[in-house]
Amino acid sequence: MTDTAELPEPPDDWRPDNPRPAGWLTPEDLAVVRAQLPLVYVDAVPVRVDESGDVVAVGLLLRMGPRGLTRSLVSGRVLYHERIRDALLRHIEKDLGPVALPQVPASPQPFTVAEYFPTPGITPFHDPRQHAVSMAYVVPVGGDCRPQQDALDLAWLTPEEACSDVVQAEFQGGRGVLVKQAMAWVGRLA
Amino acid sequence: MTDTAELPEPPDDWRPDNPRPAGWLTPEDLAVVRAQLPLVYVDAVPVRVDESGDVVAVGLLLRMGPRGLTRSLVSGRVLYHERIRDALLRHIEKDLGPVALPQVPASPQPFTVAEYFPTPGITPFHDPRQHAVSMAYVVPVGGDCRPQQDALDLAWLTPEEACSDVVQAEFQGGRGVLVKQAMAWVGRLA
Amino acid sequence: MTDTAELPEPPDDWRPDNPRPAGWLTPEDLAVVRAQLPLVYVDAVPVRVDESGDVVAVGLLLRMGPRGLTRSLVSGRVLYHERIRDALLRHIEKDLGPVALPQVPASPQPFTVAEYFPTPGITPFHDPRQHAVSMAYVVPVGGDCRPQQDALDLAWLTPEEACSDVVQAEFQGGRGVLVKQAMAWVGRLA
Amino acid sequence: MTDTAELPEPPDDWRPDNPRPAGWLTPEDLAVVRAQLPLVYVDAVPVRVDESGDVVAVGLLLRMGPRGLTRSLVSGRVLYHERIRDALLRHIEKDLGPVALPQVPASPQPFTVAEYFPTPGITPFHDPRQHAVSMAYVVPVGGDCRPQQDALDLAWLTPEEACSDVVQAEFQGGRGVLVKQAMAWVGRLA
Repeated sequence: MTDTAELPEPPDDWRPDNPRPAGWLTPEDLAVVRAQLPLVYVDAVPVRVDESGDVVAVGLLLRMGPRGLTRSLVSGRVLYHERIRDALLRHIEKDLGPVALPQVPASPQPFTVAEYFPTPGITPFHDPRQHAVSMAYVVPVGGDCRPQQDALDLAWLTPEEACSDVVQAEFQGGRGVLVKQAMAWVGRLA
Repeated sequence: MTDTAELPEPPDDWRPDNPRPAGWLTPEDLAVVRAQLPLVYVDAVPVRVDESGDVVAVGLLLRMGPRGLTRSLVSGRVLYHERIRDALLRHIEKDLGPVALPQVPASPQPFTVAEYFPTPGITPFHDPRQHAVSMAYVVPVGGDCRPQQDALDLAWLTPEEACSDVVQAEFQGGRGVLVKQAMAWVGRLA
Repeated sequence: MTDTAELPEPPDDWRPDNPRPAGWLTPEDLAVVRAQLPLVYVDAVPVRVDESGDVVAVGLLLRMGPRGLTRSLVSGRVLYHERIRDALLRHIEKDLGPVALPQVPASPQPFTVAEYFPTPGITPFHDPRQHAVSMAYVVPVGGDCRPQQDALDLAWLTPEEACSDVVQAEFQGGRGVLVKQAMAWVGRLA
Repeated sequence: MTDTAELPEPPDDWRPDNPRPAGWLTPEDLAVVRAQLPLVYVDAVPVRVDESGDVVAVGLLLRMGPRGLTRSLVSGRVLYHERIRDALLRHIEKDLGPVALPQVPASPQPFTVAEYFPTPGITPFHDPRQHAVSMAYVVPVGGDCRPQQDALDLAWLTPEEACSDVVQAEFQGGRGVLVKQAMAWVGRLA
């Protein structure tokens, strides 16, 4: 996470040890672009559903950041020539492991679009590194999920817990609001 | 299907041999209500998806009606004190059998609402028996699907085939339009 | 509001002094139907938007109910042979007056469907009188709005105020949750 | 339109004579970025609605391209530090003039996301210049619309006409499919 060492939460996916598909930028190029263009992102809210499709739990990652422990969602860039649904699958596998068995939605219509600005206060969403436009999806996962790479833990919380003030205070950049928007959309906002 | 013998396509679920949960109406009562109130319906478009969630096939039922063979979707009433998602599950099991393994959407937001009027031409949807307001969902099914009861066959068509003029002509009451709306919403309209 | 005198909040529109279009039920018939069928409803969340479409205020009605003052939304039944968009217009005119200049959404896709059950706890929504399935829409109004009939006041609150604990406590039947879902959907949930 | 002279349809907004806000790229820089990153776009489908919000006409631009006349929508890039709703307003003013009186939707949820790939066939959408991820909105316009800049004409077609084979053949890059998706979403697909 070389290029984001000083940042509160790194939703990006570049890492020195990762293979770089065609179209990936060097950290230097990415830094230049980030100051000039909005980047295309996806946010996935992983959920467990019961047999009737009702959301019973939300999967939140716990990461150690420069300011302490933070909760986060599955999130990351859409690469050049990558479909949104393939980006969702790649980031879910990266964060939850290869046997999470995600059910990527059939429709590209997101439940919302989160606009992360480098300036706080324009929208509820903030990313000091960049302007990211993130299409957000609720993704039921049916398999075994294990936190990968830099995540310390993956916790399954009830919708009520995930929307509680205590848990909401553990998010950064407005991602707690995104969880509440997701729970509102699935009819599970308290 | 006593109360619908003269009708082109019976999306209702009352049958003499069915158990009647509390709140079910007699055919006589239902006939009275149908002339005075809109009824709450659900329409489900059963689909097969690939591992990235992309729709690859649409499941269409083939039924014998008074005017010949017609294609139809999974459709039916929402009962008193029944959740929409439970109505979807009940109708999918009724039409596709008990091991279809449907993934009922996590959100109650339908992709559209089809308003079936007894008078043709007000909307694209028409039901000579009643005014039905139907919330429509795309439902991926992962298991074995077998046509039940009065359906002769269940055919899996590609989105292109399902939207073709030939297949569209085999629907009644505007249900072909609903299939096209579903394919438009999942990004598979030709 | 004869048939609902003992009830906490009457989202229905039948009144002895109202003209009855064809298909309206007598209070007695409606009482029978309410115990046997879900009714089709619409909920409208009236909002003021700025010139870029961003929601800046939510219009909440203040009504005197049997348990004191309560906040409410624009809400009511869809009548036999009435389109959803016509029901929205009718209820908005009924509650906000004839010059509210509502912008009814172009799409029938609601931001959510609120399922009001006579039994509390099945969903966040509860209506002791009936099972109502309500398609919910955010409706920008550009004109002059005046509370009509039984409403004492119409107050324009910021999204933050409308979602605050104090205001949320003034709703009944889960309608406060519906306001929060609406604000989540327009990106204005705090 | 220096950097797109050889391209079938230029949905981009860079022009030599335009003022360049901070964050705009030179044509050279944009060309480099276009080969490495997906760009954030918006598509707006301008519509006329009747007093109940029902779509009665679709506004299509007529442009002269290298291969002849083509129909197009209002479309363009989202700039660095620009909100989606401000990008929609800017592109609508650019293409339809300053008094179109657009009603930008209250919610950031698009009716679909169109993924334009430089390689044809991956999705219905194709842009030989770049990979663009475009959030698509239906935007009612109430004012006077006049084609601006490089557009020859703005024609208001009924939904049926806009979805007809003749008109569909006049679009490029899949934008005709996007119009059909929009009409499906508003309930006006034939």
